Amino acid sequence: MTLKVQVPENIASFLEAQTPEAWLDLAARRLPEMLLDHANCELKAASTALGFLYRYPNRTVLVQRMSRLAREELRHFEQVRSIMDEMGIEFERIKASRYAGQLRNAVRKEEPEKLLDLLLISAIIEARSCERFAKIAPRLPMKLGQFYAGLLASEARHFEHYILFARTECGVDQSALESRLQELKVIEAALISRPDTEFRFHSGCPNES
Amino acid sequence: MTLKVQVPENIASFLEAQTPEAWLDLAARRLPEMLLDHANCELKAASTALGFLYRYPNRTVLVQRMSRLAREELRHFEQVRSIMDEMGIEFERIKASRYAGQLRNAVRKEEPEKLLDLLLISAIIEARSCERFAKIAPRLPMKLGQFYAGLLASEARHFEHYILFARTECGVDQSALESRLQELKVIEAALISRPDTEFRFHSGCPNES
Repeated sequence: MTLKVQVPENIASFLEAQTPEAWLDLAARRLPEMLLDHANCELKAASTALGFLYRYPNRTVLVQRMSRLAREELRHFEQVRSIMDEMGIEFERIKASRYAGQLRNAVRKEEPEKLLDLLLISAIIEARSCERFAKIAPRLPMKLGQFYAGLLASEARHFEHYILFARTECGVDQSALESRLQELKVIEAALISRPDTEFRFHSGCPNES
Repeated sequence: MTLKVQVPENIASFLEAQTPEAWLDLAARRLPEMLLDHANCELKAASTALGFLYRYPNRTVLVQRMSRLAREELRHFEQVRSIMDEMGIEFERIKASRYAGQLRNAVRKEEPEKLLDLLLISAIIEARSCERFAKIAPRLPMKLGQFYAGLLASEARHFEHYILFARTECGVDQSALESRLQELKVIEAALISRPDTEFRFHSGCPNES
């Protein structure tokens, strides 16, 4: 029996590029590293959400939503850690992939552009994570695949929350927002599609020789 | 009708000094500032818990507990922010009290003493917070008092979790642990008892002229 999981239409149409098949093949073979990096990603996602609380403490609606989001990411972090523990995978520090760092390099320095970029980048990362949850789930052992399908269900709307805040919190007009979003999507698609010597949850196209 | 809330016996006997009556009198008169600083304290407590995840990522039991603790503190942060919102209290940045900073100055630099001190200080701060929740609750408007009584119920065991980890994670013998705990308790008691020109959730004895 194979798990049937599809990338939700809103996510598929949001992203500029699909995850390369070669990444999916490799991920299924390098499960311990994927889980390890995924645990780190959930923790970093929680920290990113908390960053909004510290940077924009007066924006109550944003703050409350980001706090709830951080809690959800932490719960997923705990779940991934538990799975690793059950599977006997030792936790270790690993270098982050180029992905989030290079996206963050694109964030502009001045407000409100900075907040806009931070929100749009978070939206894109969330959408990408969900696309990978959906695509990897059917290639995993059943129980783990079901876990990833559950994460997808739980996180599938996160990117839309970020987009909504980009619309409501930044005072930037819709066309400026859309054109910036498009620029960032193109940067992200390149990071996902170009050859990458490292394997991580958000790494690019495997370049194994 | 007055709310009846008592400082739990395990907390009362753990702390070296009781909160001065003068602080309680002042807190009831400076409610908006207390809530504001309390919201900040919940957020900082969450960040402190997450700090353990980043510093000691291999210690699975500690990591899982700290992540759950961070989620609980964040939920309380959201609740305090909601109450502030209902009461029309604007959020603003305020300087932290001397309390946590001066306790952190006492943390030793080398491991495992550093981890031991961080855990013991967290235990003491948690216990103090609960003592103040219990003592301030009967002096507040009923609904707010009930909220603080609820926080007390929910956080009353936190300090014991920290003490347990101090016992199990640091490889320090029991008498060394007890004597260090006692030193830190004395530092904390002084911060709570000595005159303080600022009013905060963890400030010392009010020194109003």
